[in-house]
Order: sequence, then structure tokens, then C-alpha cells
Amino acid sequence: MARIALDAMGGDFAPQATVAGALLALAELDPAHSIQLVGRTAVISEQLHALLADPQFASVRAQRSRLSFVEAPDVIEMTDKPSAAVRGKPNSSMLVGLKLQADGNSDAFVSAGSTGAQMAASMLVLRLHAGLKRPAIVTNFPAAQKSVCVLDSGANVDCGPDELVQFAKLGVVYAEDILGRSNPAVGLLSIGEEAEKGNAVVKEAHQLLQSAGLNFVGNVEGRDLPNGACDRGAFDVVVCDGFVGNVVLKFYEAIAPFIMRLLAQAGVDQETMKSALKQLDYSEHGGAPLLGVNGVSIISHGKSSPRAIKNAIKVAVQAIDTRMDEHIGRRLQEGVGAE
Amino acid sequence: MARIALDAMGGDFAPQATVAGALLALAELDPAHSIQLVGRTAVISEQLHALLADPQFASVRAQRSRLSFVEAPDVIEMTDKPSAAVRGKPNSSMLVGLKLQADGNSDAFVSAGSTGAQMAASMLVLRLHAGLKRPAIVTNFPAAQKSVCVLDSGANVDCGPDELVQFAKLGVVYAEDILGRSNPAVGLLSIGEEAEKGNAVVKEAHQLLQSAGLNFVGNVEGRDLPNGACDRGAFDVVVCDGFVGNVVLKFYEAIAPFIMRLLAQAGVDQETMKSALKQLDYSEHGGAPLLGVNGVSIISHGKSSPRAIKNAIKVAVQAIDTRMDEHIGRRLQEGVGAE
Repeated sequence: MARIALDAMGGDFAPQATVAGALLALAELDPAHSIQLVGRTAVISEQLHALLADPQFASVRAQRSRLSFVEAPDVIEMTDKPSAAVRGKPNSSMLVGLKLQADGNSDAFVSAGSTGAQMAASMLVLRLHAGLKRPAIVTNFPAAQKSVCVLDSGANVDCGPDELVQFAKLGVVYAEDILGRSNPAVGLLSIGEEAEKGNAVVKEAHQLLQSAGLNFVGNVEGRDLPNGACDRGAFDVVVCDGFVGNVVLKFYEAIAPFIMRLLAQAGVDQETMKSALKQLDYSEHGGAPLLGVNGVSIISHGKSSPRAIKNAIKVAVQAIDTRMDEHIGRRLQEGVGAE
Repeated sequence: MARIALDAMGGDFAPQATVAGALLALAELDPAHSIQLVGRTAVISEQLHALLADPQFASVRAQRSRLSFVEAPDVIEMTDKPSAAVRGKPNSSMLVGLKLQADGNSDAFVSAGSTGAQMAASMLVLRLHAGLKRPAIVTNFPAAQKSVCVLDSGANVDCGPDELVQFAKLGVVYAEDILGRSNPAVGLLSIGEEAEKGNAVVKEAHQLLQSAGLNFVGNVEGRDLPNGACDRGAFDVVVCDGFVGNVVLKFYEAIAPFIMRLLAQAGVDQETMKSALKQLDYSEHGGAPLLGVNGVSIISHGKSSPRAIKNAIKVAVQAIDTRMDEHIGRRLQEGVGAE
């Protein structure tokens, strides 16, 4: 019986995409779960009425009672400075939605709004697990065999070796709880497979990871990411600082459309490509948990479609069902006393 | 009248690919240019005889006199540690080839051998321009409009802000002299377009680049690389530290084959793809100059085909013809006195 707070005002296509996403989720989730639509109630309820009149959502009409409204008059805009917005807009859908959880009135928060603001607000309202300086954003990279979880993908730009080890621990719990992987293998992103290759931070992190009690496969290179495997075997989690992770993530998002344009010029059918490369379309993906906060805060892409919102809500439910947050707390404590 | 020393023993397919590449180059280059085949003369001359007997090279037979042999009994293997190999194998094709240039008996050096060894040997034999700590490797990234020169792509893993500025200067001369771009635009790889986005080094480099006398367009993101343009316009050169550059480069090399496999599974014709994506095939590309050494040292891909070797030789000729090395020396001095 999970209660998911959805930032109904967050994202480029809100509130239509968010409310439609909530309805799609209701149709798929266990009937015990409910969704809290956080934002300007007048706007959201009007949107809800319009959508429920649509034959597409006819089957969900009976589920209406699983939706509730939580009023939040302010909205944090994409152009707002995260730290200023978090302080200056306590009545925004972002802050109100997170406070529900901190007060025990909700189990998870999902937003497609400003990632920076969601991170700052989540740190402020939910607080971080002991020992962490910042949360990490994990992204699922499509790869040949199975997806690869890359973290951090943008929350932490200047990282020390110990932070890379924390990312590894966070990523392992994510891979276990959300992706269902057992004993996930961890790789360290570097520029050569040998332990002595990399920059100063990565070389030190390599040493620390060898004795961190993880299934560490060693360094992996940029070329290994699309394969999800290096010469020493497959990996589930790849750790890197948020600068490198964000550059590679954004490059990945842009490269498939570029290649598709080149192929379209050569006469390859667009629909065939779209369907074959569906897994590379980030707007179709669900949400990325902000790992390390006490609670559940799921980041959805700013351009989230209703389907993406639905998938983010499903990730939130998984995080609750598997008690991911509790596992993270336990994993972060492992080995700390021994140091 | 340029003399190009070719490491005939360097690369995965040497000496066949190297000698065949030299023959292809002879057919295309101005007859005033000559090629010095450096390595085990017995092996190379045997290879040359075999290739010249091939009808494919019939037209080059008359050009034989433009080839000469320079004996070098040792070979630096890909598995050799660069620094140890450079000290321990003074009679290797790598060292002998570079010494020809230092002694005034050659104008450029081309190798598809170990990049690390070529870098170490080039620094030792040719030495660096004043003010540089290490040379930089520039790579041409295929992009929508025109290619983008990314540097450093692997020679310098821990860089200070001043080094990123030096890379910008080196890249600008490369773009002018080798790619024929006028007033090349420079971008700084970061994780947001605003000047305050990035890690500590990048933020400081942003400030320095604004007053470096370059055509600086500001920060560019991973997503801008395949387009060769950001919201503020197109760019020719992108600077980043060698860790990030190498990760993105290797990722780029692997992502096209991955996407092609997905499309092939959906029935898209392999040959159509190969031809449409030819510009993404790195083995087809020419060489990457090692920028910052006094002289010309061109790095070719370890998997270089004869065509790639020929292209690397052509890059060497361009570097000589345009006096790239002289321009680099001048550019690096600009603004130094004013600091």
C-alpha cells in the first residue's frame, strides 16, 4: 500500500503529461497503491476531468478514488536557480510534495521538474544518509546484453576517491532492488584496463574499490559501455564523477538521432529505425532515483511523456516495495567501522 | 619537398599495411615528396617486393625511387611499457624514425605503433615547445556539419586550467592548418552552457579562455558534440582534459557498431549502413598530430589500414606545408608576456 506524490506541475509538458501519466499508472499498478497529485488543484482537476472524458482512459474512471489532490500554489521553473527556488518557494509543488514524505504522509516523490531544484529540495527535506556529502543520480545506459547503471550522472562534479566508492555501493543497491540483478558487478570508468591507468582520483578509487567488499571487475573504458562488458566480463554498475558521467550521458542522448539522420539520408526507413532503436530513446525511459536521500525521490526527464511519468511512478513503487532506502543505509554502513 | 619517416613496423597490421599505405601515398602525393621506411630492412624490402608485384600497385612501380630504407632492428611492442621501451630500445623504429627528424634528415614522423611510446619518444627526441608540460592528442570527431577537433583525447589525464587554454591554442592552429578553417571557434566541454557550470578546473578555464584572444564560444555539452554546434553557434575545436576526452572518444568508436547491430537485427541492410556511416569508421581516418612537440609526429590508429596510413602521411605533408609547428610556437607565445 504505497502512496506516491507526483509533482503534477513539473516538466515541459505538465500538467497534461503528468496527470495522463498518473492515469496510466493507476491502470497498471496494484489497486492498493494511490497517487497524490501535488500542485495547483484547480488546474490539475480541470486537466483530470478533460482526460477522464477521453475514451482512452475510460477503464480508469472507476479508479478515480485512488487519486488525491494536494494544493501547492507555487511552481519552480526550469529557469529558477535551484538553491534560491528551494528557499524562496516553500509552497511549490516540489517542496510540498517532498514534505508529505518527510511528515509520513507519503512514501515517494516523483518529478519531471528542474533536476537541480529536486536535488536541493530532496537534500533539504529528506536529508542524506550519514556519511554522504551529496546524493547521486543514476542513469540506465542501454547496452548490448542488459542496461548499465552509470553514476554519478551529474549531481557531483568534483569527486574524491571515497565518493566514487559510495557511488558503487549506491549503484549496487539500485541494480539489486530496481533492476533485479544479483551480486551486481561494478566497473570503474577509466582510460585503460590496468589499475594504474586513469587520473589521480580514479587510480586511488581503484585501490579502495578492491577492498570495498563489492563485486569489482576493475577499470572499464568508454568503448565497453555500449557492450555492458569488458574483457574481464559483464558489469551492471559503472562509477565515475558527475562531470564525466553527464558529458557521456548527454553525448549518448544526442548520438542516436545523429546516426539516424545519416541513415535516413541514405534511404533507411525512419519507422524501422525508431522501432529498432526504441531502447535508446531516453524520453521513453522511466525515472532515475536520486540515491542517498532518506526516502524516495525519483527524477524524471524534463521532456517526460505520459508513458515516462508512468514508468517513473513504477520505479517509485519498486523502490518502496524493495525497501531500497533501507538497503542503502545498511550498505553505506558496511565496512565503515572497520576503517 | 618533404621527407616523411614512416614507422614501417608500427601497428597491428604492419609491415603489410604500412608499406601498402606508403605506396598508396606515393601515388597521391606531389612527386617532390619522399617516404623513409624505418624498421627491419630485410622484412620491409621483402614486403615491398611482394606488394609491387601486385597489379594494384603497378602504377607506383616507377615511383620506387621516392622510397628509402632506414634500418632499425628493434620494435616497440604494444605490450611494452612506454617509458621503459623508450629508454631500453634506442634502436627501435620509433626512436630511429624520430631521431632522423631531430638530426635534420627528415621532416615528419608517422606511426601506428604504441601511442604511449610515441608520445614519450616524441617528447624525448623532439622536445616540447616552451611552456608545455606534455603534448596533446587531437582527434577529429565526425559531426553533422563539419568535424570537431577534440583535445586532449588521452595524453593528459590531470589538467590544470592553464593547460586547457594551451589545448585551445594548439587546437586552433590544427584547425587552421590541417582542416583549413579560418578563425576557428573554440568550445569548452562542460555540463551546462552557463559559465558557472562545470568542475573547478573547467570553471577557472572558462574565465581564462574569455581573455585568451581566441574565438571562444563558451561551454559546450556532450549533446552538442554530434551537431558540432551549440545554441551560440558552430564550433571547430573542443577542449577537455585527456580523461574525459579519451572516455568520450572510445565511447564514440563503440557506439556506432552497437547501433548498427541493433538495426541489422531489424533487417536494415549492412552495406547501406556501412556506406552511410563511413565517416564514423575510425579505421578509415588518417592520423592525429601529437601537438606541442618541436616537429611533426603523427599518431595513426593501431588498427590502421593501408588507406589510414596513407591519410596519416597526407596529414604529415599538410603539417609540413602549412608550417604548423612554427604557428604553434608563435601561438603559444601570444599573451604570455602580458600575463
